[in-house]
Amino acid sequence: MAESWSFLDTVESNFRPLVVIELAKGTKEETIEWFTKRIVDKKADGGAQLLIKPLVTENGHENIYLVGASHLRLLLGAETVGLVKECNDNSMRTFTYSSRKTFKDFADDNHNFLTMAECQYIIKHELENLRAKNEKMIPGYPQAKLYPGKSIVRRLLTSGILVQIFPLHDREELKKLRHSWYGRVKVGFQPLDDIRSYFGETIALYFGFLEYFTFALIPMAVIGIPYYVFAWEDYDKYVMFATFNLLWSTVILEVWKRICALLTYRWGTLLMKRQFEEPRSGFHGVLGINPVTGREEPVYSSFKRQLRIYLVSLPFVCLCLYFSLYVMMIYFDLEQWALDYHKENESNFSSLMLYVPSIIYAVVIEIMNRIYRYAAEFLTSWENHRLESSYQNHLVLKVLVFNFLNCFASLFYIAFVLFDMKLLRQSLATLLITSQILNQFAESLLPYWLQKRHNKRMKKLMCSKKTDTDLSLAEQVNMEKEMGTYLGTFDDYLELFLQFGYVSLFSCVYPLAAVFAVLNNITEIYSDALKMCRVYKRPFAEPTANIGVWQLAFETMSVISVVTNCMLIGMSPQVDALFPDSKMDLVLTVAFVEHLLLAIKFIMAFVIPDKPREIQMKLAKLEFESLEALKQQQMQLAAESLKE
Amino acid sequence: MAESWSFLDTVESNFRPLVVIELAKGTKEETIEWFTKRIVDKKADGGAQLLIKPLVTENGHENIYLVGASHLRLLLGAETVGLVKECNDNSMRTFTYSSRKTFKDFADDNHNFLTMAECQYIIKHELENLRAKNEKMIPGYPQAKLYPGKSIVRRLLTSGILVQIFPLHDREELKKLRHSWYGRVKVGFQPLDDIRSYFGETIALYFGFLEYFTFALIPMAVIGIPYYVFAWEDYDKYVMFATFNLLWSTVILEVWKRICALLTYRWGTLLMKRQFEEPRSGFHGVLGINPVTGREEPVYSSFKRQLRIYLVSLPFVCLCLYFSLYVMMIYFDLEQWALDYHKENESNFSSLMLYVPSIIYAVVIEIMNRIYRYAAEFLTSWENHRLESSYQNHLVLKVLVFNFLNCFASLFYIAFVLFDMKLLRQSLATLLITSQILNQFAESLLPYWLQKRHNKRMKKLMCSKKTDTDLSLAEQVNMEKEMGTYLGTFDDYLELFLQFGYVSLFSCVYPLAAVFAVLNNITEIYSDALKMCRVYKRPFAEPTANIGVWQLAFETMSVISVVTNCMLIGMSPQVDALFPDSKMDLVLTVAFVEHLLLAIKFIMAFVIPDKPREIQMKLAKLEFESLEALKQQQMQLAAESLKE
Repeated sequence: MAESWSFLDTVESNFRPLVVIELAKGTKEETIEWFTKRIVDKKADGGAQLLIKPLVTENGHENIYLVGASHLRLLLGAETVGLVKECNDNSMRTFTYSSRKTFKDFADDNHNFLTMAECQYIIKHELENLRAKNEKMIPGYPQAKLYPGKSIVRRLLTSGILVQIFPLHDREELKKLRHSWYGRVKVGFQPLDDIRSYFGETIALYFGFLEYFTFALIPMAVIGIPYYVFAWEDYDKYVMFATFNLLWSTVILEVWKRICALLTYRWGTLLMKRQFEEPRSGFHGVLGINPVTGREEPVYSSFKRQLRIYLVSLPFVCLCLYFSLYVMMIYFDLEQWALDYHKENESNFSSLMLYVPSIIYAVVIEIMNRIYRYAAEFLTSWENHRLESSYQNHLVLKVLVFNFLNCFASLFYIAFVLFDMKLLRQSLATLLITSQILNQFAESLLPYWLQKRHNKRMKKLMCSKKTDTDLSLAEQVNMEKEMGTYLGTFDDYLELFLQFGYVSLFSCVYPLAAVFAVLNNITEIYSDALKMCRVYKRPFAEPTANIGVWQLAFETMSVISVVTNCMLIGMSPQVDALFPDSKMDLVLTVAFVEHLLLAIKFIMAFVIPDKPREIQMKLAKLEFESLEALKQQQMQLAAESLKE
Repeated sequence: MAESWSFLDTVESNFRPLVVIELAKGTKEETIEWFTKRIVDKKADGGAQLLIKPLVTENGHENIYLVGASHLRLLLGAETVGLVKECNDNSMRTFTYSSRKTFKDFADDNHNFLTMAECQYIIKHELENLRAKNEKMIPGYPQAKLYPGKSIVRRLLTSGILVQIFPLHDREELKKLRHSWYGRVKVGFQPLDDIRSYFGETIALYFGFLEYFTFALIPMAVIGIPYYVFAWEDYDKYVMFATFNLLWSTVILEVWKRICALLTYRWGTLLMKRQFEEPRSGFHGVLGINPVTGREEPVYSSFKRQLRIYLVSLPFVCLCLYFSLYVMMIYFDLEQWALDYHKENESNFSSLMLYVPSIIYAVVIEIMNRIYRYAAEFLTSWENHRLESSYQNHLVLKVLVFNFLNCFASLFYIAFVLFDMKLLRQSLATLLITSQILNQFAESLLPYWLQKRHNKRMKKLMCSKKTDTDLSLAEQVNMEKEMGTYLGTFDDYLELFLQFGYVSLFSCVYPLAAVFAVLNNITEIYSDALKMCRVYKRPFAEPTANIGVWQLAFETMSVISVVTNCMLIGMSPQVDALFPDSKMDLVLTVAFVEHLLLAIKFIMAFVIPDKPREIQMKLAKLEFESLEALKQQQMQLAAESLKE
């Protein structure tokens, strides 16, 4: 290697645009000059040492910039972010530049060693880690304060100078991916590895979970069908079905952990060291010394945060839950009123009136969910969490609890206060099917329509221009910057979580729920895929080793479902008839069975290893190697220190 | 530093005996020669590079050897085992020889930088890691096979050539420790740091837990006293007491994790990297390639082990549990028979006969416990676990389940089958107090008597000899090698675990249990301390970061106690009287309260952080520093690779 840094970086012949930066219209020249200089500056001078090029369109210079990097720069960046790749001996190892030759498919001229998503992730990481040196503010914007070590990009974003940063689509690759993913009608698995290399691990893991979950529901669905077809009502069959469901849901959640470990080992993220987390962009506080890093940065007392959480957020959430229950009670009053009205004056109008309360309630729930979501985001942001992960956890918890109550409170009320199994079955079916149809519409038909409009606009653009490559890039950028931003997998997981609730909480009352869930999920895969490929901007890849807090949420749901199912079975008239003399014995038996099932659940969760043996061995091997290497290093150092 | 390895190691003027090796009488000369040579051989030649000296007594050479090491050797060994020490800036860091100057109290001539227990741990580690090179067998013993990489000391132990290895006591230090620990009557904390530096972390942590647990029981005891004094029988007071106990037991177990983190951070073991575990000495199998290390060593199919566990051990344990229940039923029959006999012919003999069944049952339980313990050890050893930790976990699980049943089955039977609260209170008191008295006798009076005998023998020895220093060492070694071996903290924890069961499982029936537990634990601290200092050989220090499987065991017990206490309260006549119309409502209310308490428990366990904030910050700082160091290193390597 005779090249030097400066040599490589001034050669822009092989410039490949990877990431787009859009600055606000009317951004001052001095700011742009300073920012682009910092991006191309050498690492040693505190720059990011990337390549940047303005996008020139027919309207001239539009404050849109394309960012790329030399091949060498990307490889060194891969080392910085701690990327894990496959070696020639099929083991997974953290990539280092010095050991690059030992990695599979590595060659100095192979520019596909890193996937485009990885390159974009590296560039994002480098941009976010571009830090202020001695600047006290962003040049040209005295109100946008900086301090040494503050991420420049984050300050530019919060002060509105930087509109957005997003990675470019790769039209060729996307076409291939679309074809193998949902382009042809086929029965088979999703191309998870391709999804991962195009969209990153977080999104691939969501699709992996969606697919796994769908397959896992099939046994429940298959067993559920005869209950509907033959109208089985015997309690023993229901008990069998419920018991099967409860144990099965434990098994599928445990097995998912294993599959997840298999997937993320193959993708390298299982081994990836957690990066030291930066404060999230919304975090504020007085300048102080961070006790961990020793750097000057905003600090905020954790005691104050705890006060905000327990004295404001917690009471607010409780109040919202109470309000939601109150609305539910009004709904039941309305329902009763409509029923009475229908009985008194039986007419077409009155039978139509029967549906009014449900519709009003559904609309109110939807509105409440949305308002609450904003409130939760505001509150969690106001709690001023330092880390994005902590912010996310608090937000997820707030939203989950409220959604859970909103969706299931009425069902709980029907089941355990009104004791009306028929109404429960009916409400469950209505809620499940309506929510699925609504979701399918919002996620599949709407995107389809958007895509159509999109295509038209694209065609219009294409016709009016020559098909120059450079212009085509400008077109692509202009088109993609208008696309919506994918806000993460939260809503997708939430949908699955609520579906899991419908399937498991009252499974012994409505065995057909699993069938609907399976049917919904199959179309869900396609509509979500369409959404990712066609509707939204390409999101930045986000490495992850598991589905995080959702695993816990699903497990909690499965514990709650043991309690509800046992209660439902205990309340069924068939079981009731088995204990004609003593209701006491009935309740005690049910309580005993419930505790037994819970105990079995916990033992199963304890006994089934979270990682397959194969992965355990590979991890042990890596650990052993690193310990051996450390030992070698220590021996050498000791030998050297003795020579002095 | 101008010294070289060889120079340092041949100078025996500063030889300080640390560890004693006792070989079997009549061990062949060639074996002894080979073994001592391997111990003193240079590291580079595959030796342990330690110092060894035969112990010469008046009877001549008795196959007892003293092992020591040079100061430098010990410092390098401290680096190898990954010892964590305090730095000058009060942070804890992994000791490395090259950074030795940054550590607190380090000076090249300060030989107390490492405690004696640490030095002995290092020597033990080095001896155990002394591995066969090309030897096919131990010279002189063709049946004692070796293969490259096999630990020589383990093979010598299993083939009976090596009788024992144990660390020497430090008479001066021990005297100081005894004085500050239990030498004077005082109210105060134990000198945990001194215990740790003399006996190591595992034992210090046991005493820390014992002390913490005793303090944690005081509130329960204080609240329990008025119940006895005023003979309170109101149900609402009992409910309050039980609720307090249940929540309190969750809090104390969670807070213990925090205190444990505080202690082990200060001791450095919280940060200590887990060493790569060697196969345990009892492990056998056909020679094969270990897939993890790539070394040739015995391998044993994990499938076969699973078969043995699930097809032999599990059924055997179940059978034993069944047998234990069967014996319990016989005991109740006998009890009934004795009662009937007493009613029929009321005499002194018949009232004496009333105690016979209890005594027989107590003796039978004790015998069953012992037989079962042997069986469990045999079975777990037969399961052929590769790692000591896995062996221990399986053994603990087996023993715990059986002991739990043996101790509590009769109480469960009385409470939930016979519904006899009076008998329950009586049995609970009898069992608790008898077991405590028996334990105190076995752990305190017996050791005291042993110690007396010991002193006498010592005096006899002292009188017949001159008080030469060298002879005194020989005396010390001869005396200590006859002392019993401390078999680990298992039995001590088990005793505490069962005590926790007596206190928490039926706390609402017998509030005085906590009082007895506190009184017992105070004397327990003293008797255990006496046992450690006077009765047993000094044990090797064993670094540990927590109390391991016992945390889980105590938490499980606290979950079970929620269920039992709720049932007991539900069954009390006072609560019964509150629901005169419907037993149904009673049971449902109790079940609801129980689920609520369980939910609160889990939420509390989730909300209370396992590590204090202070420790979290320190750990985060260390992680940050190591990430920064890695980054620096990578930058340097990259810069170097570009210069080529």
